[in-house]
Amino acid sequence: MNNFFIIANKQKDINLEITEQIRHHISRLGAVCNIYDQYDRDVSSIDIPEGTQCILVIGGDGTILAAARMLVGSNIPLLGINLGTLGFLADVNLADLSKTLDLLLQDQYQVENRIMLTAEVYKQGEKAATYIALNDFNINRFGASRVIGLKVGINGSVIDRYRADGVIVCTPTGSTGYNLSAGGPIINPTCKNFVITPICPHSLTARSIVLAKEDIVTVEVEQIRSNIKEEAIISFDGREGLSLFPGDQVKIYKSQEVTPFIKATEVSFVQILKEKLL
Amino acid sequence: MNNFFIIANKQKDINLEITEQIRHHISRLGAVCNIYDQYDRDVSSIDIPEGTQCILVIGGDGTILAAARMLVGSNIPLLGINLGTLGFLADVNLADLSKTLDLLLQDQYQVENRIMLTAEVYKQGEKAATYIALNDFNINRFGASRVIGLKVGINGSVIDRYRADGVIVCTPTGSTGYNLSAGGPIINPTCKNFVITPICPHSLTARSIVLAKEDIVTVEVEQIRSNIKEEAIISFDGREGLSLFPGDQVKIYKSQEVTPFIKATEVSFVQILKEKLL
Amino acid sequence: MNNFFIIANKQKDINLEITEQIRHHISRLGAVCNIYDQYDRDVSSIDIPEGTQCILVIGGDGTILAAARMLVGSNIPLLGINLGTLGFLADVNLADLSKTLDLLLQDQYQVENRIMLTAEVYKQGEKAATYIALNDFNINRFGASRVIGLKVGINGSVIDRYRADGVIVCTPTGSTGYNLSAGGPIINPTCKNFVITPICPHSLTARSIVLAKEDIVTVEVEQIRSNIKEEAIISFDGREGLSLFPGDQVKIYKSQEVTPFIKATEVSFVQILKEKLL
Amino acid sequence: MNNFFIIANKQKDINLEITEQIRHHISRLGAVCNIYDQYDRDVSSIDIPEGTQCILVIGGDGTILAAARMLVGSNIPLLGINLGTLGFLADVNLADLSKTLDLLLQDQYQVENRIMLTAEVYKQGEKAATYIALNDFNINRFGASRVIGLKVGINGSVIDRYRADGVIVCTPTGSTGYNLSAGGPIINPTCKNFVITPICPHSLTARSIVLAKEDIVTVEVEQIRSNIKEEAIISFDGREGLSLFPGDQVKIYKSQEVTPFIKATEVSFVQILKEKLL
Repeated sequence: MNNFFIIANKQKDINLEITEQIRHHISRLGAVCNIYDQYDRDVSSIDIPEGTQCILVIGGDGTILAAARMLVGSNIPLLGINLGTLGFLADVNLADLSKTLDLLLQDQYQVENRIMLTAEVYKQGEKAATYIALNDFNINRFGASRVIGLKVGINGSVIDRYRADGVIVCTPTGSTGYNLSAGGPIINPTCKNFVITPICPHSLTARSIVLAKEDIVTVEVEQIRSNIKEEAIISFDGREGLSLFPGDQVKIYKSQEVTPFIKATEVSFVQILKEKLL
Repeated sequence: MNNFFIIANKQKDINLEITEQIRHHISRLGAVCNIYDQYDRDVSSIDIPEGTQCILVIGGDGTILAAARMLVGSNIPLLGINLGTLGFLADVNLADLSKTLDLLLQDQYQVENRIMLTAEVYKQGEKAATYIALNDFNINRFGASRVIGLKVGINGSVIDRYRADGVIVCTPTGSTGYNLSAGGPIINPTCKNFVITPICPHSLTARSIVLAKEDIVTVEVEQIRSNIKEEAIISFDGREGLSLFPGDQVKIYKSQEVTPFIKATEVSFVQILKEKLL
Repeated sequence: MNNFFIIANKQKDINLEITEQIRHHISRLGAVCNIYDQYDRDVSSIDIPEGTQCILVIGGDGTILAAARMLVGSNIPLLGINLGTLGFLADVNLADLSKTLDLLLQDQYQVENRIMLTAEVYKQGEKAATYIALNDFNINRFGASRVIGLKVGINGSVIDRYRADGVIVCTPTGSTGYNLSAGGPIINPTCKNFVITPICPHSLTARSIVLAKEDIVTVEVEQIRSNIKEEAIISFDGREGLSLFPGDQVKIYKSQEVTPFIKATEVSFVQILKEKLL
Repeated sequence: MNNFFIIANKQKDINLEITEQIRHHISRLGAVCNIYDQYDRDVSSIDIPEGTQCILVIGGDGTILAAARMLVGSNIPLLGINLGTLGFLADVNLADLSKTLDLLLQDQYQVENRIMLTAEVYKQGEKAATYIALNDFNINRFGASRVIGLKVGINGSVIDRYRADGVIVCTPTGSTGYNLSAGGPIINPTCKNFVITPICPHSLTARSIVLAKEDIVTVEVEQIRSNIKEEAIISFDGREGLSLFPGDQVKIYKSQEVTPFIKATEVSFVQILKEKLL
């Protein structure tokens, strides 16, 4: 590959100093390098220069997560470049970038497709919104609601009704995030499964369930008190979506879209897990 | 005892029908029975008729919890009368009330003092509020904060700094509530200990810690992101208190006040646990 | 299909009364039905009459588990018939069997291939044993060992070294067994993943990890005390295998063999989960 | 105090070099120092020279635990001296010992009484053994038993019957040991409570319960399979006691004995927790 496009996060790379160094380095190697310097996590899609073969995202896991959403549908592989310590999503540190770029220019890399999830929100039976996430969807209590009632179904069967702070539905990529905090399992990020994990359920029996890639999850907010109107909110990869009220439903399933990550180094998920968590 | 005061919850006892039946029953037995029919969970204290020897609270655990706060300092024993299924706080069901009242009139009962907790909120070093709770204090993320930074100390030593949804500090009475949902242990309600339980901590090492009655907990909200102002909120027994911002501190310790519950039946906490949870 | 072979467990079906009823029923329908009445959980393989198209296993989950091992390599689909309450492995109760047999004779059924795991035990670098399991492998402390040291690797990278009671490696089918008791997640039984779950690890960071079907787990017993020789034991689907000593290694991966279960009813894993666990 | 008695563990202090240095140091300060050099963890009591005011135990937490049992009833305060890193039971490192001894000679120290637990084992209604423990009692499955049936009672009420690997009953001192591995809470070691924690229970509802100092726990091993005779074993502070069979009962309660630990340093349990665990 010899045509790069950098997504630069000015909040992380002040004055784009590092971005410019990388562009300079790539140019000297005889390859094309464009820059997108209007990064904003709330933007949902960006124009990618024609001919782009690789997108370099400079920042932390948050920046890469936002970039993944912006790039949905492009199918151009993405390389995360971490400015700080190794992240779960960034494959390379700044110090090793030069060596990695050499490999990319020689087409020596692999692409690891990470699954994404789609959520459809239904209000009064009508689709009110559709979201996509690389990490997770969270349906959390909101505002004055101390607890919300949730009816969780899998493939049309109700698996449980419980009062809880909320529920997480996450990808393997997102399993080491909020899911882990809520007691869910770690999943090899190359898997196609996804997971439901309840957040502080009042039920002692509610547990994490790992689903098959064909499974469809439904979450319905339920009225549990006569005098308070429950309110929940759906968030996707940490960004807030619609408010949800009793009767509203969310349908979550594996998206047809994936995020293609470039793997240029030999660092396995086991090594990252060990360094970051254990 | 022969002087009763009923706290009636009109939302639970429509038209006070049950309350009036109880009053009638008590009067026939030759005892005094006054009624407080202005119950409102947001009222913080009420006037108790002079000579009152026993307070009857009719409603669920929520009503009893609110009543306990209103009665703080009175030291008059309280009997919870459950309108539905057996609760953790109500000692008697409506069906068994007649028998229990006979025992009370013959002074055949015991009083179980349940500990309460005090929380002092400090903003810029100044005390901004003081709360009391029979069940628990929760310091939770609020508004747009996805996660908050918490610095938790015990007796002046910092025990942990973590990112989390929040932290619970609860009494034995409150241990079977939110604390249990968050993974905390059940505690015999006659104990004088209290417990800290983190809510969805990002740290894998954060665990519930059971404290001695002399211990003092401090929780400080910390700034963890450069671009978002974290916001938390303290709640006491499910009621919302002040908003908390980075630098604000909460000091929590066993209160000098207790809630004296009447134990007229032989039902042990083990039996209630078994029926309610297991 | 019209050629059946019943594996009968005399301990569960005294005098084979139920077995004979089923054979009689099948014969009346014009199909062949042979019986194996020498069931013994320690037998590792049995002779299957030529032409057998379906194996009926009468008993509980334990009997079906043992039968699955005996049938490895045959690739003949298996139907579990539960004598008691619905099990995780039995698809049909005795009461519904007649209806199910009608469907089978009309070739109206589906086959659900459940993955199995292979474990190779190495002592001084030499392979000492190979086991296959439909549910799980457990490597547990044994005898006078209070705790064992375990070095767990995934795909050649050491993920963790900890002191523990042991470690479980289970299939989705086995996820609702010992794995769940030890805090592991539930997995949709049609998935091809498998899971590592530590048993009472001394480390606060050890967590369940869900693996991809290509992953290879290695577990090595480590010497952790100078004065005691640690001893562990590997068990497969509840049966005891070899003793393990420091330096011994176990390699576990998805087997090439599967257990083909007949699905003749519409009962989903969600419904079974709900009935059995929640 | 000016009369010391050292319990020396030859396995930890080879040739008693350190022990002799300490004795020499104490003698130069003008105090008496006797030595017990026959330490063996299986010895249940030792002769303490008359006039002994302080017992110094040199070794790790295991040595101190064994010494505590040997010293039961003596009521002479014990100081744990750690040869390695700070332990939960050792109050002082070798490097700081000189300073601590000066304080002790000036009577500048505090005594922290740690509770102990007593277990009585009953077979066919007859008391078969009595044990005492500073850390914990474990009732574990043994031999070929994959799982044992346990009926757990508190103050005469059955709280739960479950299949499990076992159950732990521990003191606050023992809460950071096996109890923590099995998911139990940490308890401030000065508390008088004790805790029941199930080990890998098949029940999803079994949880840790923190008990009051007056509570009495009973654990009965139950027959759960028709064809296998279950076998369990009770261990106390890691030492094996009697084998237990279905029908055998264990009664556990707070002992009248305590272990008096000398606190000469300002290191709080919070600091030790943080250093050792978090």
